[in-house]
Amino acid sequence: MCGRLLVLEGIDGGGKTTQLERLAAWLPGSGLMPAGADLVVTREPGGTVLGEELRRLLLKPPQGAAPCNRAELLLYAADRAQHVERLIKPALQAGNWVLSDRFSGATEAYQGHGRGLDLATIRQLERMATAGLEPDITLWLDLPLADSIRRRRRQRADRMEAAGSAFLERVHGGFAALATEQGWCRVDATRSVEAVAADISVALRGRLG
Amino acid sequence: MCGRLLVLEGIDGGGKTTQLERLAAWLPGSGLMPAGADLVVTREPGGTVLGEELRRLLLKPPQGAAPCNRAELLLYAADRAQHVERLIKPALQAGNWVLSDRFSGATEAYQGHGRGLDLATIRQLERMATAGLEPDITLWLDLPLADSIRRRRRQRADRMEAAGSAFLERVHGGFAALATEQGWCRVDATRSVEAVAADISVALRGRLG
Repeated sequence: MCGRLLVLEGIDGGGKTTQLERLAAWLPGSGLMPAGADLVVTREPGGTVLGEELRRLLLKPPQGAAPCNRAELLLYAADRAQHVERLIKPALQAGNWVLSDRFSGATEAYQGHGRGLDLATIRQLERMATAGLEPDITLWLDLPLADSIRRRRRQRADRMEAAGSAFLERVHGGFAALATEQGWCRVDATRSVEAVAADISVALRGRLG
Repeated sequence: MCGRLLVLEGIDGGGKTTQLERLAAWLPGSGLMPAGADLVVTREPGGTVLGEELRRLLLKPPQGAAPCNRAELLLYAADRAQHVERLIKPALQAGNWVLSDRFSGATEAYQGHGRGLDLATIRQLERMATAGLEPDITLWLDLPLADSIRRRRRQRADRMEAAGSAFLERVHGGFAALATEQGWCRVDATRSVEAVAADISVALRGRLG
């Protein structure tokens, strides 16, 4: 596959959405992408018609439908399998670049470190869901939990964010462990939008240029 | 767990729904169930609030949302994990009996033999989805494909039934292989409703009496 898969990870409040929008505007004219390649911006859960249905069940389930931990893990895996098969792989095969808000790392951080499900089982499941596809670069927007809570104060929490600060602290620790182990690019997300965007562009030029 | 899990399997048209209704009426007064035990009748996909949402996505998905093979497998596993955790296990732990229209065997037959996904991977996934729970008895309503097609002629096919006769022939072969390997109780479903019901009651008395 000749395209590239770029992923943004991190707990909510770290500015993923803002940075994704900036990247979507900056990347096509950055000189990094080959001429003729398109940029596909997507997200998990979601990114496909099925995925958006699963996103609703995962983050804002109807009364009585909140998944148990194992069902939650399997739904994220189903969402990712569909995302890879229907959207990411075809885009990469066509030589396009894909920029995704979350990928496998989020499952390991939230369902593994956060929920306490077995990490080896999760990795096995992820290999199946992704058919072995791995990101070319993962940018981790590192924001301490206290800052995340402060920034999100005015927003209505979804089911994952509402799971409590001890849970989110474990998720944050999971992202830190993954970043070290898998060579992710850590970006200090406590700073201004401009400073974070500048860091990201430097990192992308360094790794993909 | 002191309750019992009874499962009906087989391709559509074999009379599962009819036999399930008859069993639901017959079992409580059969003398097989301990005094005070309730009978819970359920189905897969479905059986929980989340499961019914997943059933819709699996069998009658909105335009463009039909899952790819791996997503389909993972959605069935998610449905089963929720079903076991929220409905089946609590019922068995309370000493009640559970009668389910389909369980793990269906995934092995449809997604393994039918879709051609790796059987070892499916079994691993199933152990995770069921947390190791296995039925006390599986009744396989064995109906040749030609009879199934003839009986279903007037019904609107769902996504699995509409997958074609070569697919359903492999599924039927999968059920036959599983029945032999796992000691399921095979019931000849070509005969009358009465004859099939009589066979089932004899089988249950023999195995659970």
